[in-house]
Amino acid sequence: MSSHGESRFTSDVYEARLERAAELTRAAHLDALLITPGPDLQYLIGSRAQSFERLTCLVIPASGATPSVIIPKLELASLGASAAGELGLQIVDWTDGVDPYGLIKTVLNAGARTAVDDHMPALHLLPIAEKFGQLPVSATPMLRQLRMLKDDTEIAALRQAGAAIDRVHARMGEFLRVGRTEAEVAADITAAIVEEGHTAAAFVIVGSGPHGADPHHEVSDRVIEDGDVVVIDIGGPVEPGYFSDSTRTYVLGEPSEEVAAQYAELERAQAAAVAAVRPGVTAASVDAAARDLLAKAGLAEYFVHRTGHGIGLSVHEEPYIVSGNGIRLETGMAFSIEPGIYFSGAWGARIEDIVVVTADGCESMNKRPHGLTRL
Amino acid sequence: MSSHGESRFTSDVYEARLERAAELTRAAHLDALLITPGPDLQYLIGSRAQSFERLTCLVIPASGATPSVIIPKLELASLGASAAGELGLQIVDWTDGVDPYGLIKTVLNAGARTAVDDHMPALHLLPIAEKFGQLPVSATPMLRQLRMLKDDTEIAALRQAGAAIDRVHARMGEFLRVGRTEAEVAADITAAIVEEGHTAAAFVIVGSGPHGADPHHEVSDRVIEDGDVVVIDIGGPVEPGYFSDSTRTYVLGEPSEEVAAQYAELERAQAAAVAAVRPGVTAASVDAAARDLLAKAGLAEYFVHRTGHGIGLSVHEEPYIVSGNGIRLETGMAFSIEPGIYFSGAWGARIEDIVVVTADGCESMNKRPHGLTRL
Repeated sequence: MSSHGESRFTSDVYEARLERAAELTRAAHLDALLITPGPDLQYLIGSRAQSFERLTCLVIPASGATPSVIIPKLELASLGASAAGELGLQIVDWTDGVDPYGLIKTVLNAGARTAVDDHMPALHLLPIAEKFGQLPVSATPMLRQLRMLKDDTEIAALRQAGAAIDRVHARMGEFLRVGRTEAEVAADITAAIVEEGHTAAAFVIVGSGPHGADPHHEVSDRVIEDGDVVVIDIGGPVEPGYFSDSTRTYVLGEPSEEVAAQYAELERAQAAAVAAVRPGVTAASVDAAARDLLAKAGLAEYFVHRTGHGIGLSVHEEPYIVSGNGIRLETGMAFSIEPGIYFSGAWGARIEDIVVVTADGCESMNKRPHGLTRL
Repeated sequence: MSSHGESRFTSDVYEARLERAAELTRAAHLDALLITPGPDLQYLIGSRAQSFERLTCLVIPASGATPSVIIPKLELASLGASAAGELGLQIVDWTDGVDPYGLIKTVLNAGARTAVDDHMPALHLLPIAEKFGQLPVSATPMLRQLRMLKDDTEIAALRQAGAAIDRVHARMGEFLRVGRTEAEVAADITAAIVEEGHTAAAFVIVGSGPHGADPHHEVSDRVIEDGDVVVIDIGGPVEPGYFSDSTRTYVLGEPSEEVAAQYAELERAQAAAVAAVRPGVTAASVDAAARDLLAKAGLAEYFVHRTGHGIGLSVHEEPYIVSGNGIRLETGMAFSIEPGIYFSGAWGARIEDIVVVTADGCESMNKRPHGLTRL
């Protein structure tokens, strides 16, 4: 498919990130970071390479020596849009028949203690472990320190993404109408996501009536009926690759008193979690802020997922806003606050904003009203 | 995004595959297969689950005991379209906060020697290795025995996919014209891929003029000019998930004598490789059949990739038709034969058919003419 949208930051941004990654690797007493295609590679050198069975791997020595990119010769052109050239990285291409794992060892010329990105597939991880004679560790403890703390340029991109998805929600009355199927509504929303400034629609959930009770329902041929409560969870990337993700819940016509009352509890829980965000508190405490309110309203059992997930170059990344996560929030962290309530076979609702932690609380990237919107 | 196309085979197909997978696991002296979302999971139980950071894992005990599916509670609905219910698999759901890797150990209740699918990300593989106290091995040596040998139903799906992509190539004159950009051409091809019976377009390469010299170029805003040689490499899935993949090379107007002569060598090389396919020969020998002819024509250095890749539920899978691959071809194996020649900065060409090995040679899924087609 087309790969529009290859913009990236200027190369000094990536230079600083690579240096910091090497420092953190040294501090963790490791010899190198090994990064295969995915959001970490995009974060570190602005590359959106997508190879799978042929190894592409950024090798960052902890020593501070120049990083290398091991890459199949026939995919060399994919590096053109990245910062690899301007950064002066060592490019090591290989052709079918060569052992690319041996190349990692050759360019590294250092010890065997490596850390790998979360997305590295077993296809590559197992031969790397064999080549180095030991199991790599996860690079996430290092990279999340970098990736979690968004700088001003990244926050600006998230703000732009939030405004773009807000414009789609603002147009929901054009798309979501009685008599249309979820799939028809989703097709229009998909087009609107692109029209409003995203490079693509990454996900479009239209959960109408009983389908709203499945948090991960996508779309179906179910026809929207009068009285349906409909969960709309949508998002996509804006250049240079940062995601929007926002959920609002709509009702066709008038909700029952019970629905309105339960929704009001959800709205209070979402607001309480947003209000709980500030530097120094734990991710778990933000989750608890929403969960405790829903529990007091007798709705605990209907809130079946965590409160949120970090967001940036990935739709889901650290920090996860979940029970048991003791990580302390810091200025610049970006994540969703999205409690929901799900009544199996009947209806569901969810409210989701992306927030960025500020010195005294948080800034929401999404400004649309939180209430159950009548259409 | 929408997840249309959830059809699958009847559950007896998956029952036989699971039994055979358990047998092969026993024969390999392993205790279990661990399969996360991806083509192996689709192959084994007809599930197209796509979870990433929350573990979904099919656990197949080598003992022949009932397999289990570990799955996040909020993704339970995604199993509905799979054969898991009809097969009577043990479903073990988990909610955020639970250690899902511990659940694998619990349901397995056996030794620690596990094999994992190629797509399992480091995010899950590293904690599994830690939980079991040893590095898993790759499941591919077992699963490729199953997945490489297509049965009649699978071959029928590949035949249908081949006919569908042939119909798109047959319409190329509608799309590929002087004055249009590669991106405009690709957008029309994308629509045609769906119109002709695919559930989606998986990839659309329009490599015009010098862009044809990059085997992995996708599309750009380059305007097609008179005299351009254009590589069109396209494909997508047809239900229940089997892929087409076919490349033809076109020329706008008349090719130069040199281009025509070099293309003729490529056409001979592709035909030679197809003619070399039969049960008992090695994958490497098929690669050599194309490569040797191009070498004799002085074009060896311009053929920069392997001759082909297996295809089925994945676009790229075993067997790879590449130098050094000693695997012997067997009836029912399906793969591409796609030599190409690439002249940097000038032009490129590739011819690609999907073939299935038969008792006395192979059947091509693609029937379009192989010559340089004038448009």
